[in-house]
Amino acid sequence: MHICKPFRVRYCETDKMGIVYHGNYYPWFEIGRTEYLRDLGLTYKAMEEQGILLPLIENHCKYRIPAVYDDEIFVRTTVKELTVARVVFSYQLYKLEEDGVLLAEGETAHAFTNTSNRPVNIRKLAPELFDKLKSCMEKAEG
Amino acid sequence: MHICKPFRVRYCETDKMGIVYHGNYYPWFEIGRTEYLRDLGLTYKAMEEQGILLPLIENHCKYRIPAVYDDEIFVRTTVKELTVARVVFSYQLYKLEEDGVLLAEGETAHAFTNTSNRPVNIRKLAPELFDKLKSCMEKAEG
Amino acid sequence: MHICKPFRVRYCETDKMGIVYHGNYYPWFEIGRTEYLRDLGLTYKAMEEQGILLPLIENHCKYRIPAVYDDEIFVRTTVKELTVARVVFSYQLYKLEEDGVLLAEGETAHAFTNTSNRPVNIRKLAPELFDKLKSCMEKAEG
Amino acid sequence: MHICKPFRVRYCETDKMGIVYHGNYYPWFEIGRTEYLRDLGLTYKAMEEQGILLPLIENHCKYRIPAVYDDEIFVRTTVKELTVARVVFSYQLYKLEEDGVLLAEGETAHAFTNTSNRPVNIRKLAPELFDKLKSCMEKAEG
Repeated sequence: MHICKPFRVRYCETDKMGIVYHGNYYPWFEIGRTEYLRDLGLTYKAMEEQGILLPLIENHCKYRIPAVYDDEIFVRTTVKELTVARVVFSYQLYKLEEDGVLLAEGETAHAFTNTSNRPVNIRKLAPELFDKLKSCMEKAEG
Repeated sequence: MHICKPFRVRYCETDKMGIVYHGNYYPWFEIGRTEYLRDLGLTYKAMEEQGILLPLIENHCKYRIPAVYDDEIFVRTTVKELTVARVVFSYQLYKLEEDGVLLAEGETAHAFTNTSNRPVNIRKLAPELFDKLKSCMEKAEG
Repeated sequence: MHICKPFRVRYCETDKMGIVYHGNYYPWFEIGRTEYLRDLGLTYKAMEEQGILLPLIENHCKYRIPAVYDDEIFVRTTVKELTVARVVFSYQLYKLEEDGVLLAEGETAHAFTNTSNRPVNIRKLAPELFDKLKSCMEKAEG
Repeated sequence: MHICKPFRVRYCETDKMGIVYHGNYYPWFEIGRTEYLRDLGLTYKAMEEQGILLPLIENHCKYRIPAVYDDEIFVRTTVKELTVARVVFSYQLYKLEEDGVLLAEGETAHAFTNTSNRPVNIRKLAPELFDKLKSCMEKAEG
């Protein structure tokens, strides 16, 4: 489990309803998993440079309370599922003010592929990454 | 069921993986439902001016084949569920070339609210809209 | 000079001020120059596949009347300047309704580079492209 | 003059050229001016709640070195011009690594309006805001 540093909702992320456009929550989940990996010593940038990609194959979000402009928000990220072929992260988005009210919850599922978009066995290709993610998942479950 | 006019993937919708960023599929689903409503004689813009909003409460997308820059794509939209409190649209995204291959599938669930973000009974507030959506749903099921 | 097919302002392009977020005009200018090139028989996609890139080095926009959700808009694009090293496109954004009122005007300057981000002499590398752009510029001036 | 806290380039901000899409620099400039105002004790959110808007009327950006995914960047913002009707901010975007190399420079011009989009005299309507901005401009010049 990982909690990222809070960040502010940008004006450009809002829409004419006065709240954040729903598609703009996914980049926030991306911040959650990116910072999680970074804190594990595994930047996504370095993974890509080694030829390991994590293309997204499925996502889901449930919107509870709308995020609005200038809110300070943060993401709680967990590794929910892991196989040698794919990983599922789950996210909870909170607002820093108002005692950390839960704004939204979601998931993203990713395949492990090489730069030719072919599936790879991540345990073989990057055993350290696999072990760290597995350890994260087990802690989340435990 | 409604099929929107094809449109092109924009450069700004791609990311460094060379494919469309996953969050950018949701604006395409929005095109699908917006044009569906327009063809029913119900623009979303007019609905908002009458004080009826459709905030998104949940969404989901399954990504099959990546959309890439300059693809001509189109959306097939159906009304999947309807109650007096909410509506669920489902979407299939196709590529015009290659015999209309299916790129992605998704859903968006919306509440019916007024401009104060309060739930409304859409059958009471806008019976014509409710009836049209119901008729669409029944055709989709039939 | 080229006029693209009209397209609709998307909900996701608006912000909480109820108008289109200013940064979102640049993707529209992109549509203008992309469709201009396509009508010249030169898709930007094919250019990239041949290893010719047009990274943006400068842009500018003057906003006159705000574009709003669901407006039908179109872009008038001209080739304003051309050398062997760079090209400048200029744009005028119009609204289809209200007798085609001018909403915004802008410019984008692009370098000609290869995929290693090195400047190239476009007249040498792609003489046909250079000639077509030159002819477009002369017509715009004439 | 104000220097904002560094923040990371998001994956969704890149395009298929492998660099940040040019339109996505404007939200960063927005971060620069928003945090500048906040540090002056003037949140843009509170200004809007008081009925003062700053719609953008013109912008410009010169791109020197492309920002890429995961770069840590920051914005140096100054008040360049100020009248009772409008304000111009200028921005310099730097990369934290590599001794703070300059990536891009730009400007945004804003009108002072009320929520009906009418011009207002900001010195009359919000003398404190005007004075603070004037003081910022004078320091930038001095």
